[in-house]
Amino acid sequence: MLDASKMKLNNNTMMRGLSEFSATSILMIFSCIGCTANQQDYNHGILIASLIQGMAVVMIMHIFGFISGAHANPCVSIACCLLGHIGSHMMIFYVASQLAGATFGYFLLHQMVPQATIMSSKLGNCIVEPMEGLSYVQILSIEGFLAAVMTFAWCALWDVRSGRFLDSVTLRIGCLITACHLVGAQLTGATMNPAKLLIPTLYNGNPETVLMQLSGQLVACIIVPQIWHFVFSQRYRPLRVENSERPSPELYLTP
Amino acid sequence: MLDASKMKLNNNTMMRGLSEFSATSILMIFSCIGCTANQQDYNHGILIASLIQGMAVVMIMHIFGFISGAHANPCVSIACCLLGHIGSHMMIFYVASQLAGATFGYFLLHQMVPQATIMSSKLGNCIVEPMEGLSYVQILSIEGFLAAVMTFAWCALWDVRSGRFLDSVTLRIGCLITACHLVGAQLTGATMNPAKLLIPTLYNGNPETVLMQLSGQLVACIIVPQIWHFVFSQRYRPLRVENSERPSPELYLTP
Amino acid sequence: MLDASKMKLNNNTMMRGLSEFSATSILMIFSCIGCTANQQDYNHGILIASLIQGMAVVMIMHIFGFISGAHANPCVSIACCLLGHIGSHMMIFYVASQLAGATFGYFLLHQMVPQATIMSSKLGNCIVEPMEGLSYVQILSIEGFLAAVMTFAWCALWDVRSGRFLDSVTLRIGCLITACHLVGAQLTGATMNPAKLLIPTLYNGNPETVLMQLSGQLVACIIVPQIWHFVFSQRYRPLRVENSERPSPELYLTP
Amino acid sequence: MLDASKMKLNNNTMMRGLSEFSATSILMIFSCIGCTANQQDYNHGILIASLIQGMAVVMIMHIFGFISGAHANPCVSIACCLLGHIGSHMMIFYVASQLAGATFGYFLLHQMVPQATIMSSKLGNCIVEPMEGLSYVQILSIEGFLAAVMTFAWCALWDVRSGRFLDSVTLRIGCLITACHLVGAQLTGATMNPAKLLIPTLYNGNPETVLMQLSGQLVACIIVPQIWHFVFSQRYRPLRVENSERPSPELYLTP
Repeated sequence: MLDASKMKLNNNTMMRGLSEFSATSILMIFSCIGCTANQQDYNHGILIASLIQGMAVVMIMHIFGFISGAHANPCVSIACCLLGHIGSHMMIFYVASQLAGATFGYFLLHQMVPQATIMSSKLGNCIVEPMEGLSYVQILSIEGFLAAVMTFAWCALWDVRSGRFLDSVTLRIGCLITACHLVGAQLTGATMNPAKLLIPTLYNGNPETVLMQLSGQLVACIIVPQIWHFVFSQRYRPLRVENSERPSPELYLTP
Repeated sequence: MLDASKMKLNNNTMMRGLSEFSATSILMIFSCIGCTANQQDYNHGILIASLIQGMAVVMIMHIFGFISGAHANPCVSIACCLLGHIGSHMMIFYVASQLAGATFGYFLLHQMVPQATIMSSKLGNCIVEPMEGLSYVQILSIEGFLAAVMTFAWCALWDVRSGRFLDSVTLRIGCLITACHLVGAQLTGATMNPAKLLIPTLYNGNPETVLMQLSGQLVACIIVPQIWHFVFSQRYRPLRVENSERPSPELYLTP
Repeated sequence: MLDASKMKLNNNTMMRGLSEFSATSILMIFSCIGCTANQQDYNHGILIASLIQGMAVVMIMHIFGFISGAHANPCVSIACCLLGHIGSHMMIFYVASQLAGATFGYFLLHQMVPQATIMSSKLGNCIVEPMEGLSYVQILSIEGFLAAVMTFAWCALWDVRSGRFLDSVTLRIGCLITACHLVGAQLTGATMNPAKLLIPTLYNGNPETVLMQLSGQLVACIIVPQIWHFVFSQRYRPLRVENSERPSPELYLTP
Repeated sequence: MLDASKMKLNNNTMMRGLSEFSATSILMIFSCIGCTANQQDYNHGILIASLIQGMAVVMIMHIFGFISGAHANPCVSIACCLLGHIGSHMMIFYVASQLAGATFGYFLLHQMVPQATIMSSKLGNCIVEPMEGLSYVQILSIEGFLAAVMTFAWCALWDVRSGRFLDSVTLRIGCLITACHLVGAQLTGATMNPAKLLIPTLYNGNPETVLMQLSGQLVACIIVPQIWHFVFSQRYRPLRVENSERPSPELYLTP
């Protein structure tokens, strides 16, 4: 709020903030409600929960993609800022909106679903607990690896060179989230999203592993943009192509 | 019928009406027959039924999308009218076609599948019953929330700003329907479609919760277009972009 | 062969014939081998088999789509001919190639997979048997309904008006095939493909219901193009759009 | 390394090599970790493992597609070279990067996941063992058939004629990989990737069937490009279309 007041709070900025707020709260509700409703059969639950995670991302990127970029994830906003697509004020405004949205979504969820249903499962509670036998370093590295893959995908999405291939990009990111969740759900929970990780933790108490997971995610979203910039970006920018292919750059990619 | 007679019943209008009629009846048959045939394994049934719901929507949007918009859902037609994409006469004609189509589809279904198979399962009967323990307000709010998310997705689809990203839009809506059904099927049934909700109810008797579900859906499809218009639409319309990106606006978006 | 000799057997025609031959034989192998390998768990088998059916269609449309249209299905070729996209000689050549391809694929399958694995399951044998309790009329109408939906989808794909939305069309047809198979697999087998229906039947003996299924499929693919032409096509053809949107009509749509 | 030194090791070449290195190591980790984490329920494991295989390919094609083509598979690079899209030096550099990446990924995997979890399952170990009862020729022909289908798909992707339909191509290749894995996982393992096949074999000992699988894959990726070139390619190249449709050919297709 403080930071947001420094920037011109024009209509467009408010629209973006509300978009991130709504996107994160919808994502929160879908993630948790899905796990809650399908908790009975564990192995099936993993498949269904992963599909819900991925499809919820497809959904919010479809709805809010051309308004605010549909990050719905502080990691993504930080990476977006480090690559220079949004300013740091806007990034802080985004992250604040996302945290507020996640809180609101978690609150709404507890109003909509009976407490008995929520409380009967850890998963439904949106609390993730790493698999037994994982060391702290392993938790940090698995969460970091998955968050790094996701951040790479967003870097590629923002890249000039993918400007011609944006139509099905929501589905591709959805596949990525589903795959990461299928792979990591039984290991560390694979939230890949500080907002989705922190809000249930603050509400329900404080699992000791949450700091490892959070660190892994933050390290990933800070290092990956550097790698993308220095290793995988072309030194020169093909300006002509950029102009012709992306006539209105703010439409979809860089919000 | 009465309302349709007020408008010029030219060929194009009839084509649209028949398209909505066919789309809704195909959707009805797929939804119900899928649940009927896969009723045995409940948990699996949820996954298969949700995939069928989503893929049936992909299917009818592919076939009828450029003819009538492939709403196949009174909620969508009402939202479309409130956003000004179709007139109110056309909206009533659409809704009437959809209700007639749903009735015809439900009738056809009962001819094609043996009664014994249909009657052995509530789900196959297309009767949705909310989970025990949900209060009336919770039923209304869950149905309203899911219908609101779906309506938001259609608002985004019709928006000028998504005009460049329409190729894979059927798949995205399909993902959305699948996700909403996966999330809500065990809670309230997640029909998100008054036509699909009402016809089996009228045929089979009158579950007391149907009014809650219907209210949730109607409230969502009336409020969401207002939110979209006043919060998430740009104040000025980028006319130049609109003209160049959507040379034939009636082709796909606004039927 | 006789008919093919009447037309100029130039390189392009041979390429199309070989393309249909390969597409159908790959489709045959994937359909049958998938069911064979996953026969143990019936309910799961339905989901996996349906996904394989749909994804195999995505695959062959991706590979052979711009060569011959990737029909891989006599029904589709007949409908394509009735709509005027290919001539009748070419249609007969296509159907012959498809039947030959299906035979070759079925032969190859029996060489690649141990007989014991194939023979242990009806499904793996690619023999479809309708659910008990279905009358002959119901078998005919279910097969006809599913084949009609599929034919509608191909009519929409060939339509001028979908010329701008062809990128993800393979995935949409894949969704459709998966949905139809999920819905109909336990009822009538849902082959929707005379080539896939006839070859295993001729090899393994003659189930009495095969004529009903075949009739349903043929009736659908003959009637649906008429409906599409007279009900869902625009009376005038927007020639200007056709020219600009589809600069090379033989590239993808009308092979 | 030796071969790479012969070519100008400019920035762009290094970027491509690192891209293939990263892509293959991510693919390796996802393939193995997915199987490891979901090993309990075998039949489910097949579905989940196949989805992970396919979605991991979607993921790396999205991230690294416009950098190096995202082959992540020596077979694909060999076919790419035989069709003339990359030179032979570059092909050898690609294959070396892929093998190094697979080794690094397999090493990283063993650091991230507890040994107990990995060792408890053959599948998680990334060792594939063919089904009992398959003869050597059958193993070779099944692996060869699946690798051939995959190579055909890449040939179609690189073809000039699919230049207009590249947006959703990652999803189509993902469907193909999922379908091939669903079909072949219980028969021969369906790795379709020498890098993914060799590294775990070298690490864990030497199953006797690995040579059959490798031969099948290599035969397929050598023969298929010839078939594509002589049977399924148009004799003349529509140069005009190529220029207008693919203004920057190195962007996505031919790396």
